[in-house]
Amino acid sequence: MGRVTVRRRVMRVRDSAVSHRVDVLAAEEPLEIRVNGRPVTVTMRTPGHDFELAAGFLVSEGVIASPDDIAGMRYCAGALEDGMNTYNVLDLSLAPGVREPDTSLERNFYTTSSCGVCGKASLEAVRTVARWRIADDPLRLDPELVAALPERLRAAQQVFDRTGGLHAAGLFDASGEPLCVREDVGRHNAVDKVLGWAVQEGRLPLRSTVLMVSGRASFELVQKAVMGGIPALAAVSAPSSLAVELAAEEGLTLLGFVRGSSMNVYAGEHRMVA
Amino acid sequence: MGRVTVRRRVMRVRDSAVSHRVDVLAAEEPLEIRVNGRPVTVTMRTPGHDFELAAGFLVSEGVIASPDDIAGMRYCAGALEDGMNTYNVLDLSLAPGVREPDTSLERNFYTTSSCGVCGKASLEAVRTVARWRIADDPLRLDPELVAALPERLRAAQQVFDRTGGLHAAGLFDASGEPLCVREDVGRHNAVDKVLGWAVQEGRLPLRSTVLMVSGRASFELVQKAVMGGIPALAAVSAPSSLAVELAAEEGLTLLGFVRGSSMNVYAGEHRMVA
Repeated sequence: MGRVTVRRRVMRVRDSAVSHRVDVLAAEEPLEIRVNGRPVTVTMRTPGHDFELAAGFLVSEGVIASPDDIAGMRYCAGALEDGMNTYNVLDLSLAPGVREPDTSLERNFYTTSSCGVCGKASLEAVRTVARWRIADDPLRLDPELVAALPERLRAAQQVFDRTGGLHAAGLFDASGEPLCVREDVGRHNAVDKVLGWAVQEGRLPLRSTVLMVSGRASFELVQKAVMGGIPALAAVSAPSSLAVELAAEEGLTLLGFVRGSSMNVYAGEHRMVA
Repeated sequence: MGRVTVRRRVMRVRDSAVSHRVDVLAAEEPLEIRVNGRPVTVTMRTPGHDFELAAGFLVSEGVIASPDDIAGMRYCAGALEDGMNTYNVLDLSLAPGVREPDTSLERNFYTTSSCGVCGKASLEAVRTVARWRIADDPLRLDPELVAALPERLRAAQQVFDRTGGLHAAGLFDASGEPLCVREDVGRHNAVDKVLGWAVQEGRLPLRSTVLMVSGRASFELVQKAVMGGIPALAAVSAPSSLAVELAAEEGLTLLGFVRGSSMNVYAGEHRMVA
Protein backbone atom coordinates (compact mmCIF):
# COMPACT_ATOMS: atom_id res chain seq x y z
CA MET A 1 0.00 0.00 0.00
CA GLY A 2 3.07 2.21 0.08
CA ARG A 3 2.87 5.61 1.70
CA VAL A 4 -0.65 6.41 0.54
CA THR A 5 -2.02 4.81 3.68
CA VAL A 6 -0.62 4.21 7.15
CA ARG A 7 -1.75 1.56 9.64
CA ARG A 8 -2.30 2.48 13.29
CA ARG A 9 -3.69 0.77 16.34
CA VAL A 10 -6.87 2.51 17.41
CA MET A 11 -9.25 2.28 20.37
CA ARG A 12 -12.82 1.82 19.24
CA VAL A 13 -15.84 2.72 21.35
CA ARG A 14 -19.24 1.36 20.27
CA ASP A 15 -22.13 1.85 22.66
CA SER A 16 -19.64 2.08 25.53
CA ALA A 17 -18.00 -1.21 24.54
CA VAL A 18 -14.29 -0.76 24.03
CA SER A 19 -12.13 -2.72 21.62
CA HIS A 20 -8.82 -2.28 19.84
CA ARG A 21 -8.01 -2.88 16.22
CA VAL A 22 -5.71 -1.71 13.46
CA ASP A 23 -7.09 1.17 11.43
CA VAL A 24 -5.94 2.43 8.05
CA LEU A 25 -5.27 6.16 7.81
CA ALA A 26 -4.80 8.41 4.82
CA ALA A 27 -1.14 9.42 4.72
CA GLU A 28 -0.29 13.11 5.03
CA GLU A 29 3.23 14.43 4.42
CA PRO A 30 4.62 17.84 3.47
CA LEU A 31 5.72 18.37 -0.13
CA GLU A 32 7.95 21.28 -1.02
CA ILE A 33 7.64 22.33 -4.64
CA ARG A 34 10.67 24.09 -6.09
CA VAL A 35 10.77 25.76 -9.47
CA ASN A 36 14.19 26.07 -11.09
CA GLY A 37 15.68 25.28 -7.68
CA ARG A 38 13.76 27.96 -5.79
CA PRO A 39 11.17 26.96 -3.13
CA VAL A 40 7.70 28.11 -4.21
CA THR A 41 5.29 26.39 -1.83
CA VAL A 42 4.95 23.69 0.80
CA THR A 43 1.70 21.76 0.83
CA MET A 44 0.46 18.97 3.09
CA ARG A 45 -0.51 16.20 0.71
CA THR A 46 -1.06 12.49 0.39
CA PRO A 47 2.08 11.06 -1.23
CA GLY A 48 1.61 9.69 -4.73
CA HIS A 49 1.24 11.43 -8.09
CA ASP A 50 3.64 14.09 -6.78
CA PHE A 51 4.86 15.08 -10.24
CA GLU A 52 1.26 15.64 -11.27
CA LEU A 53 0.64 17.66 -8.13
CA ALA A 54 3.58 19.96 -8.85
CA ALA A 55 2.66 20.36 -12.51
CA GLY A 56 -1.01 20.93 -11.68
CA PHE A 57 -0.12 23.50 -9.04
CA LEU A 58 1.73 25.45 -11.72
CA VAL A 59 -1.23 25.13 -14.09
CA SER A 60 -3.45 26.60 -11.37
CA GLU A 61 -0.99 29.43 -10.90
CA GLY A 62 -1.00 30.19 -14.62
CA VAL A 63 2.70 29.34 -15.03
CA ILE A 64 2.46 26.38 -17.43
CA ALA A 65 -0.13 25.07 -19.88
CA SER A 66 1.67 22.55 -22.09
CA PRO A 67 4.09 19.64 -21.60
CA ASP A 68 6.66 21.71 -23.51
CA ASP A 69 6.68 24.23 -20.67
CA ILE A 70 8.32 21.62 -18.41
CA ALA A 71 12.00 20.90 -18.97
CA GLY A 72 12.15 18.25 -16.25
CA MET A 73 11.10 17.15 -12.78
CA ARG A 74 12.96 15.24 -10.09
CA TYR A 75 12.94 14.57 -6.39
CA CYS A 76 15.78 16.39 -4.68
CA ALA A 77 18.22 13.97 -3.09
CA GLY A 78 20.01 14.26 0.21
CA ALA A 79 17.20 15.93 2.07
CA LEU A 80 17.93 13.98 5.26
CA GLU A 81 21.15 14.15 7.28
CA ASP A 82 21.98 10.56 6.38
CA GLY A 83 21.45 11.26 2.70
CA MET A 84 18.21 9.29 2.53
CA ASN A 85 15.67 10.81 0.19
CA THR A 86 12.40 11.81 1.86
CA TYR A 87 10.65 12.14 -1.51
CA ASN A 88 9.11 15.28 -0.06
CA VAL A 89 11.05 17.87 -2.08
CA LEU A 90 10.46 18.09 -5.80
CA ASP A 91 12.18 20.38 -8.26
CA LEU A 92 10.47 21.31 -11.51
CA SER A 93 12.58 22.94 -14.20
CA LEU A 94 10.77 25.23 -16.59
CA ALA A 95 11.57 25.29 -20.28
CA PRO A 96 13.54 28.34 -21.48
CA GLY A 97 11.30 31.37 -21.85
CA VAL A 98 8.63 30.20 -19.38
CA ARG A 99 8.26 32.85 -16.72
CA GLU A 100 8.84 31.76 -13.12
CA PRO A 101 5.95 32.14 -10.67
CA ASP A 102 5.79 35.30 -8.63
CA THR A 103 5.65 34.13 -5.03
CA SER A 104 5.05 37.49 -3.42
CA LEU A 105 2.04 37.68 -1.18
CA GLU A 106 0.55 40.65 -2.98
CA ARG A 107 0.47 39.01 -6.39
CA ASN A 108 -2.83 37.20 -6.13
CA PHE A 109 -4.87 40.19 -5.23
CA TYR A 110 -3.06 43.32 -6.30
CA THR A 111 -1.12 43.07 -9.51
CA THR A 112 -4.17 42.74 -11.70
CA SER A 113 -6.42 45.22 -10.01
CA SER A 114 -6.57 48.82 -9.06
CA CYS A 115 -9.03 47.75 -6.38
CA GLY A 116 -8.02 46.66 -2.91
CA VAL A 117 -8.57 43.22 -1.45
CA CYS A 118 -12.13 42.21 -2.30
CA GLY A 119 -14.06 39.54 -4.13
CA LYS A 120 -14.16 41.63 -7.30
CA ALA A 121 -10.38 41.92 -7.34
CA SER A 122 -10.11 38.15 -6.91
CA LEU A 123 -12.34 37.56 -9.95
CA GLU A 124 -10.30 40.04 -11.94
CA ALA A 125 -7.07 38.30 -11.00
CA VAL A 126 -8.36 35.01 -12.42
CA ARG A 127 -9.56 36.69 -15.61
CA THR A 128 -6.12 38.16 -16.16
CA VAL A 129 -4.18 34.91 -15.90
CA ALA A 130 -6.76 32.58 -17.53
CA ARG A 131 -5.53 31.27 -20.88
CA TRP A 132 -8.78 29.80 -22.19
CA ARG A 133 -12.23 31.10 -22.80
CA ILE A 134 -14.66 28.52 -21.50
CA ALA A 135 -17.86 30.51 -22.03
CA ASP A 136 -18.08 29.24 -25.65
CA ASP A 137 -17.54 25.58 -24.76
CA PRO A 138 -20.35 23.63 -26.51
CA LEU A 139 -20.70 21.07 -23.69
CA ARG A 140 -24.31 20.12 -22.87
CA LEU A 141 -25.16 18.32 -19.66
CA ASP A 142 -27.98 15.87 -19.09
CA PRO A 143 -29.04 15.84 -15.41
CA GLU A 144 -29.13 12.05 -15.51
CA LEU A 145 -25.50 11.96 -16.54
CA VAL A 146 -24.53 14.39 -13.79
CA ALA A 147 -26.50 12.40 -11.21
CA ALA A 148 -24.41 9.34 -12.01
CA LEU A 149 -21.06 11.07 -11.43
CA PRO A 150 -20.81 10.88 -7.61
CA GLU A 151 -21.16 7.11 -7.70
CA ARG A 152 -18.67 6.81 -10.54
CA LEU A 153 -16.23 8.99 -8.63
CA ARG A 154 -16.60 6.86 -5.53
CA ALA A 155 -16.18 3.67 -7.54
CA ALA A 156 -12.89 4.95 -8.91
CA GLN A 157 -11.55 6.03 -5.51
CA GLN A 158 -8.98 3.52 -4.40
CA VAL A 159 -8.08 4.74 -0.95
CA PHE A 160 -11.26 6.26 0.43
CA ASP A 161 -12.92 2.95 1.16
CA ARG A 162 -10.04 1.96 3.38
CA THR A 163 -9.65 5.27 5.21
CA GLY A 164 -12.75 7.41 4.77
CA GLY A 165 -10.32 10.27 4.89
CA LEU A 166 -9.62 11.48 1.39
CA HIS A 167 -11.03 14.07 -0.92
CA ALA A 168 -11.44 13.08 -4.54
CA ALA A 169 -11.53 14.89 -7.85
CA GLY A 170 -12.61 13.13 -11.01
CA LEU A 171 -12.49 14.38 -14.57
CA PHE A 172 -15.20 12.97 -16.84
CA ASP A 173 -15.80 13.35 -20.56
CA ALA A 174 -19.10 14.55 -22.05
CA SER A 175 -20.51 11.02 -21.97
CA GLY A 176 -19.67 10.58 -18.29
CA GLU A 177 -16.65 8.33 -18.77
CA PRO A 178 -13.86 8.91 -16.21
CA LEU A 179 -10.63 10.30 -17.68
CA CYS A 180 -8.66 10.78 -14.46
CA VAL A 181 -9.50 10.36 -10.76
CA ARG A 182 -7.16 11.49 -7.99
CA GLU A 183 -7.35 11.50 -4.18
CA ASP A 184 -5.68 13.60 -1.51
CA VAL A 185 -6.14 14.77 2.08
CA GLY A 186 -6.42 18.26 0.55
CA ARG A 187 -9.19 18.80 -1.98
CA HIS A 188 -7.17 21.48 -3.82
CA ASN A 189 -4.35 18.93 -4.16
CA ALA A 190 -6.70 16.33 -5.64
CA VAL A 191 -7.74 18.85 -8.31
CA ASP A 192 -4.13 19.91 -8.94
CA LYS A 193 -3.20 16.25 -9.50
CA VAL A 194 -5.90 16.02 -12.18
CA LEU A 195 -4.67 19.23 -13.84
CA GLY A 196 -1.09 17.96 -13.66
CA TRP A 197 -2.09 14.70 -15.35
CA ALA A 198 -3.79 16.74 -18.06
CA VAL A 199 -0.91 19.12 -18.74
CA GLN A 200 1.60 16.28 -18.89
CA GLU A 201 -0.65 14.51 -21.41
CA GLY A 202 -0.90 17.69 -23.49
CA ARG A 203 -4.66 17.79 -22.97
CA LEU A 204 -5.13 21.41 -21.89
CA PRO A 205 -7.58 23.06 -22.31
CA LEU A 206 -9.89 20.30 -21.07
CA ARG A 207 -12.76 21.18 -23.36
CA SER A 208 -16.17 19.55 -22.93
CA THR A 209 -15.28 17.84 -19.65
CA VAL A 210 -16.86 17.85 -16.18
CA LEU A 211 -14.87 17.95 -12.96
CA MET A 212 -16.62 16.21 -10.06
CA VAL A 213 -15.34 16.88 -6.51
CA SER A 214 -16.25 15.11 -3.31
CA GLY A 215 -16.65 18.13 -1.06
CA ARG A 216 -17.72 21.74 -1.38
CA ALA A 217 -17.04 24.14 -4.23
CA SER A 218 -14.89 27.04 -3.11
CA PHE A 219 -13.54 29.99 -5.09
CA GLU A 220 -10.21 28.18 -5.31
CA LEU A 221 -11.70 25.08 -6.95
CA VAL A 222 -13.60 27.12 -9.55
CA GLN A 223 -10.38 29.01 -10.23
CA LYS A 224 -8.56 25.73 -10.87
CA ALA A 225 -11.30 24.53 -13.22
CA VAL A 226 -11.02 27.80 -15.15
CA MET A 227 -7.24 27.47 -15.39
CA GLY A 228 -7.70 23.97 -16.83
CA GLY A 229 -10.29 25.12 -19.36
CA ILE A 230 -12.92 22.86 -17.76
CA PRO A 231 -16.45 24.14 -18.57
CA ALA A 232 -18.34 22.39 -15.72
CA LEU A 233 -17.68 21.77 -12.03
CA ALA A 234 -19.97 19.55 -9.96
CA ALA A 235 -19.75 19.21 -6.18
CA VAL A 236 -21.43 16.94 -3.69
CA SER A 237 -21.89 19.83 -1.27
CA ALA A 238 -22.52 23.57 -1.31
CA PRO A 239 -20.66 26.26 -3.24
CA SER A 240 -19.55 29.53 -1.67
CA SER A 241 -20.76 32.92 -2.84
CA LEU A 242 -17.47 33.78 -4.53
CA ALA A 243 -17.32 30.39 -6.26
CA VAL A 244 -20.71 31.15 -7.86
CA GLU A 245 -19.65 34.67 -8.83
CA LEU A 246 -16.48 33.46 -10.51
CA ALA A 247 -18.33 30.66 -12.33
CA ALA A 248 -20.96 33.12 -13.60
CA GLU A 249 -18.31 35.56 -14.76
CA GLU A 250 -16.23 32.94 -16.58
CA GLY A 251 -19.20 31.12 -18.12
CA LEU A 252 -18.57 27.92 -16.17
CA THR A 253 -21.46 25.65 -15.23
CA LEU A 254 -21.40 25.16 -11.46
CA LEU A 255 -23.48 22.41 -9.87
CA GLY A 256 -23.83 21.76 -6.14
CA PHE A 257 -25.62 19.29 -3.87
CA VAL A 258 -25.40 16.63 -6.58
CA ARG A 259 -27.13 13.85 -4.66
CA GLY A 260 -29.36 11.07 -5.90
CA SER A 261 -31.43 12.39 -8.79
CA SER A 262 -31.28 16.01 -7.64
CA MET A 263 -28.85 18.90 -8.00
CA ASN A 264 -28.68 22.67 -7.95
CA VAL A 265 -27.30 24.68 -10.86
CA TYR A 266 -25.70 27.87 -9.57
CA ALA A 267 -24.23 29.24 -12.79
CA GLY A 268 -24.11 28.43 -16.50
CA GLU A 269 -27.52 26.77 -16.59
CA HIS A 270 -27.68 27.20 -20.37
CA ARG A 271 -25.62 23.99 -20.61
CA MET A 272 -28.34 21.91 -18.92
CA VAL A 273 -30.53 20.00 -21.36
CA ALA A 274 -33.27 19.41 -18.79
CA MET B 1 -28.19 38.68 7.36
CA GLY B 2 -25.18 40.84 6.57
CA ARG B 3 -22.27 39.47 4.63
CA VAL B 4 -22.19 36.06 6.29
CA THR B 5 -24.63 34.77 3.69
CA VAL B 6 -25.47 35.79 0.13
CA ARG B 7 -28.72 35.14 -1.72
CA ARG B 8 -28.67 33.84 -5.30
CA ARG B 9 -31.21 32.57 -7.79
CA VAL B 10 -30.59 28.91 -8.51
CA MET B 11 -31.93 26.32 -10.92
CA ARG B 12 -33.08 23.22 -9.12
CA VAL B 13 -33.39 19.81 -10.75
CA ARG B 14 -35.35 17.12 -8.88
CA ASP B 15 -36.05 13.89 -10.75
CA SER B 16 -35.74 15.80 -14.04
CA ALA B 17 -38.26 18.43 -12.92
CA VAL B 18 -36.77 21.91 -13.17
CA SER B 19 -37.65 24.85 -10.94
CA HIS B 20 -36.06 28.10 -9.86
CA ARG B 21 -35.76 29.52 -6.38
CA VAL B 22 -33.57 31.75 -4.28
CA ASP B 23 -30.81 29.91 -2.45
CA VAL B 24 -28.71 31.12 0.47
CA LEU B 25 -24.95 30.73 0.07
CA ALA B 26 -22.15 30.95 2.60
CA ALA B 27 -20.23 34.15 1.89
CA GLU B 28 -16.56 33.87 0.93
CA GLU B 29 -14.30 36.92 0.70
CA PRO B 30 -10.53 37.41 0.91
CA LEU B 31 -9.08 38.80 4.15
CA GLU B 32 -5.59 40.21 4.21
CA ILE B 33 -4.01 40.11 7.65
CA ARG B 34 -1.28 42.68 8.28
CA VAL B 35 0.96 42.75 11.31
CA ASN B 36 2.43 46.13 12.23
CA GLY B 37 1.44 47.30 8.75
CA ARG B 38 3.13 44.48 6.88
CA PRO B 39 1.04 41.92 4.89
CA VAL B 40 1.42 38.46 6.42
CA THR B 41 -1.25 36.34 4.78
CA VAL B 42 -4.39 36.43 2.66
CA THR B 43 -7.07 33.88 3.47
CA MET B 44 -10.44 33.19 1.87
CA ARG B 45 -12.90 33.38 4.74
CA THR B 46 -16.51 33.95 5.67
CA PRO B 47 -16.76 37.56 6.87
CA GLY B 48 -17.53 37.99 10.56
CA HIS B 49 -15.36 37.60 13.66
CA ASP B 50 -12.47 38.94 11.59
CA PHE B 51 -10.57 40.29 14.60
CA GLU B 52 -10.79 36.86 16.19
CA LEU B 53 -9.61 35.27 12.95
CA ALA B 54 -6.55 37.52 12.81
CA ALA B 55 -5.72 37.02 16.49
CA GLY B 56 -6.28 33.26 16.26
CA PHE B 57 -4.09 33.02 13.18
CA LEU B 58 -1.27 34.58 15.18
CA VAL B 59 -1.90 32.19 18.08
CA SER B 60 -1.60 29.30 15.62
CA GLU B 61 1.66 30.76 14.33
CA GLY B 62 3.05 31.04 17.84
CA VAL B 63 3.28 34.85 17.70
CA ILE B 64 0.84 35.78 20.49
CA ALA B 65 -0.62 34.04 23.53
CA SER B 66 -2.16 36.76 25.68
CA PRO B 67 -4.37 39.83 25.18
CA ASP B 68 -1.39 41.93 26.29
CA ASP B 69 0.49 40.83 23.17
CA ILE B 70 -1.98 42.82 21.03
CA ALA B 71 -1.63 46.61 21.01
CA GLY B 72 -4.59 47.13 18.69
CA MET B 73 -6.54 46.00 15.66
CA ARG B 74 -8.35 47.93 12.97
CA TYR B 75 -9.68 47.59 9.45
CA CYS B 76 -7.51 49.52 7.02
CA ALA B 77 -9.49 52.30 5.39
CA GLY B 78 -9.37 53.48 1.80
CA ALA B 79 -8.83 50.08 0.26
CA LEU B 80 -11.05 50.87 -2.72
CA GLU B 81 -10.43 53.59 -5.32
CA ASP B 82 -13.42 55.54 -4.11
CA GLY B 83 -12.23 55.35 -0.52
CA MET B 84 -14.92 52.87 0.51
CA ASN B 85 -13.74 50.34 3.04
CA THR B 86 -13.95 46.71 1.89
CA TYR B 87 -13.47 45.44 5.45
CA ASN B 88 -11.15 42.88 3.89
CA VAL B 89 -7.83 44.25 5.14
CA LEU B 90 -7.08 44.13 8.84
CA ASP B 91 -4.01 45.45 10.60
CA LEU B 92 -2.98 44.02 13.96
CA SER B 93 -0.39 45.93 15.98
CA LEU B 94 1.75 43.89 18.32
CA ALA B 95 2.69 45.12 21.76
CA PRO B 96 6.30 46.29 22.14
CA GLY B 97 8.67 43.36 22.49
CA VAL B 98 6.43 40.82 20.74
CA ARG B 99 8.35 39.35 17.85
CA GLU B 100 6.81 39.72 14.40
CA PRO B 101 5.99 36.54 12.47
CA ASP B 102 8.56 35.21 10.08
CA THR B 103 6.75 34.93 6.77
CA SER B 104 9.49 33.18 4.86
CA LEU B 105 8.46 29.94 3.21
CA GLU B 106 11.24 27.95 4.83
CA ARG B 107 10.29 28.80 8.38
CA ASN B 108 7.68 26.14 9.02
CA PHE B 109 9.81 23.24 8.07
CA TYR B 110 13.44 24.20 8.34
CA THR B 111 14.30 26.55 11.16
CA THR B 112 13.61 24.03 13.87
CA SER B 113 15.09 20.98 12.32
CA SER B 114 18.30 19.67 10.90
CA CYS B 115 16.13 17.30 8.91
CA GLY B 116 14.74 18.12 5.50
CA VAL B 117 11.05 18.38 4.63
CA CYS B 118 9.34 15.42 6.23
CA GLY B 119 6.63 14.57 8.71
CA LYS B 120 9.17 14.33 11.54
CA ALA B 121 10.42 17.84 10.86
CA SER B 122 6.83 19.10 10.90
CA LEU B 123 6.25 17.55 14.34
CA GLU B 124 9.50 19.06 15.57
CA ALA B 125 8.50 22.51 14.31
CA VAL B 126 5.31 22.39 16.40
CA ARG B 127 7.19 21.20 19.47
CA THR B 128 9.58 24.13 19.21
CA VAL B 129 6.94 26.86 19.04
CA ALA B 130 4.35 25.31 21.40
CA ARG B 131 4.03 27.29 24.62
CA TRP B 132 2.04 24.81 26.68
CA ARG B 133 2.53 21.27 27.72
CA ILE B 134 -0.80 19.51 27.26
CA ALA B 135 0.36 15.98 28.06
CA ASP B 136 -0.22 16.63 31.80
CA ASP B 137 -3.73 18.05 31.36
CA PRO B 138 -5.98 16.19 33.83
CA LEU B 139 -9.03 16.17 31.50
CA ARG B 140 -10.98 12.92 31.49
CA LEU B 141 -13.51 12.17 28.76
CA ASP B 142 -16.65 10.11 29.04
CA PRO B 143 -17.63 8.62 25.65
CA GLU B 144 -21.23 9.61 26.31
CA LEU B 145 -20.19 13.23 26.66
CA VAL B 146 -18.13 13.08 23.46
CA ALA B 147 -21.01 11.42 21.59
CA ALA B 148 -23.23 14.39 22.40
CA LEU B 149 -20.82 16.99 20.98
CA PRO B 150 -21.65 16.76 17.25
CA GLU B 151 -25.30 17.49 17.94
CA ARG B 152 -24.41 20.34 20.29
CA LEU B 153 -22.08 21.78 17.68
CA ARG B 154 -24.74 21.58 15.01
CA ALA B 155 -27.31 23.17 17.33
CA ALA B 156 -25.00 26.13 17.90
CA GLN B 157 -24.25 26.64 14.20
CA GLN B 158 -26.15 29.63 12.99
CA VAL B 159 -25.41 29.67 9.30
CA PHE B 160 -25.04 26.02 8.33
CA ASP B 161 -28.75 25.28 8.37
CA ARG B 162 -29.34 27.99 5.83
CA THR B 163 -26.44 27.19 3.50
CA GLY B 164 -25.13 23.69 4.19
CA GLY B 165 -21.81 25.18 3.27
CA LEU B 166 -19.85 25.97 6.39
CA HIS B 167 -17.32 24.21 8.54
CA ALA B 168 -17.71 24.61 12.27
CA ALA B 169 -15.39 24.47 15.26
CA GLY B 170 -16.79 24.38 18.78
CA LEU B 171 -14.92 24.62 22.05
CA PHE B 172 -16.54 22.75 24.96
CA ASP B 173 -15.65 22.59 28.62
CA ALA B 174 -15.09 19.34 30.51
CA SER B 175 -18.82 18.98 31.17
CA GLY B 176 -19.70 19.40 27.50
CA GLU B 177 -20.96 22.98 27.72
CA PRO B 178 -20.17 25.09 24.66
CA LEU B 179 -17.75 27.96 25.30
CA CYS B 180 -17.37 29.26 21.74
CA VAL B 181 -18.65 28.08 18.35
CA ARG B 182 -17.48 29.60 15.08
CA GLU B 183 -18.23 28.89 11.41
CA ASP B 184 -16.30 29.51 8.20
CA VAL B 185 -15.96 28.25 4.63
CA GLY B 186 -12.44 27.22 5.68
CA ARG B 187 -12.17 24.79 8.57
CA HIS B 188 -8.78 26.18 9.63
CA ASN B 189 -10.40 29.63 9.81
CA ALA B 190 -13.21 28.33 12.04
CA VAL B 191 -10.59 27.00 14.48
CA ASP B 192 -8.55 30.22 14.29
CA LYS B 193 -11.67 32.21 15.18
CA VAL B 194 -12.10 30.08 18.31
CA LEU B 195 -8.44 30.57 19.25
CA GLY B 196 -8.77 34.30 18.61
CA TRP B 197 -11.79 34.50 20.87
CA ALA B 198 -9.80 32.69 23.55
CA VAL B 199 -6.68 34.83 23.36
CA GLN B 200 -8.71 38.04 23.45
CA GLU B 201 -10.50 36.75 26.54
CA GLY B 202 -7.20 35.91 28.19
CA ARG B 203 -8.14 32.24 28.36
CA LEU B 204 -5.02 30.63 26.89
CA PRO B 205 -4.02 27.89 27.52
CA LEU B 206 -7.45 26.30 27.10
CA ARG B 207 -6.93 23.63 29.75
CA SER B 208 -9.44 20.80 30.15
CA THR B 209 -11.42 21.68 27.04
CA VAL B 210 -12.44 19.71 23.93
CA LEU B 211 -12.43 21.13 20.43
CA MET B 212 -15.05 19.56 18.16
CA VAL B 213 -14.74 20.08 14.39
CA SER B 214 -17.24 19.29 11.67
CA GLY B 215 -14.87 17.75 9.13
CA ARG B 216 -11.67 15.76 9.14
CA ALA B 217 -8.71 16.12 11.45
CA SER B 218 -5.60 17.19 9.59
CA PHE B 219 -2.09 17.90 10.86
CA GLU B 220 -2.93 21.61 10.73
CA LEU B 221 -5.95 21.29 13.02
CA VAL B 222 -4.03 19.26 15.62
CA GLN B 223 -1.28 21.89 15.44
CA LYS B 224 -3.81 24.62 16.17
CA ALA B 225 -5.23 22.69 19.14
CA VAL B 226 -1.71 22.29 20.51
CA MET B 227 -1.00 26.00 20.10
CA GLY B 228 -4.18 26.76 22.07
CA GLY B 229 -3.29 24.33 24.85
CA ILE B 230 -6.40 22.24 24.08
CA PRO B 231 -5.94 18.64 25.32
CA ALA B 232 -8.61 16.96 23.13
CA LEU B 233 -9.70 17.26 19.50
CA ALA B 234 -12.76 15.42 18.20
CA ALA B 235 -13.71 15.21 14.54
CA VAL B 236 -16.77 13.92 12.73
CA SER B 237 -14.59 12.34 10.05
CA ALA B 238 -11.19 10.68 9.68
CA PRO B 239 -7.81 11.95 10.86
CA SER B 240 -4.71 11.86 8.68
CA SER B 241 -1.58 9.90 9.59
CA LEU B 242 0.38 13.02 10.51
CA ALA B 243 -2.48 14.36 12.63
CA VAL B 244 -2.34 11.16 14.70
CA GLU B 245 1.44 11.29 14.97
CA LEU B 246 1.42 14.87 16.21
CA ALA B 247 -1.38 14.15 18.70
CA ALA B 248 0.51 11.13 20.07
CA GLU B 249 3.72 13.11 20.38
CA GLU B 250 2.10 16.08 22.15
CA GLY B 251 -0.13 13.99 24.43
CA LEU B 252 -3.35 15.22 22.85
CA THR B 253 -6.41 12.99 22.77
CA LEU B 254 -7.54 12.67 19.16
CA LEU B 255 -10.97 11.27 18.36
CA GLY B 256 -12.35 10.61 14.90
CA PHE B 257 -15.58 9.29 13.34
CA VAL B 258 -17.55 10.63 16.30
CA ARG B 259 -20.98 9.52 15.12
CA GLY B 260 -23.96 8.37 17.12
CA SER B 261 -22.70 6.43 20.12
CA SER B 262 -19.46 5.38 18.48
CA MET B 263 -16.03 6.92 18.01
CA ASN B 264 -12.40 5.99 17.39
CA VAL B 265 -9.62 7.13 19.71
CA TYR B 266 -6.42 7.57 17.73
CA ALA B 267 -4.15 9.02 20.40
CA GLY B 268 -4.23 9.88 24.10
CA GLU B 269 -6.66 7.13 25.03
CA HIS B 270 -5.59 7.37 28.68
CA ARG B 271 -8.08 10.26 28.99
CA MET B 272 -11.04 8.03 28.12
CA VAL B 273 -12.97 6.82 31.15
CA ALA B 274 -14.70 4.04 29.20
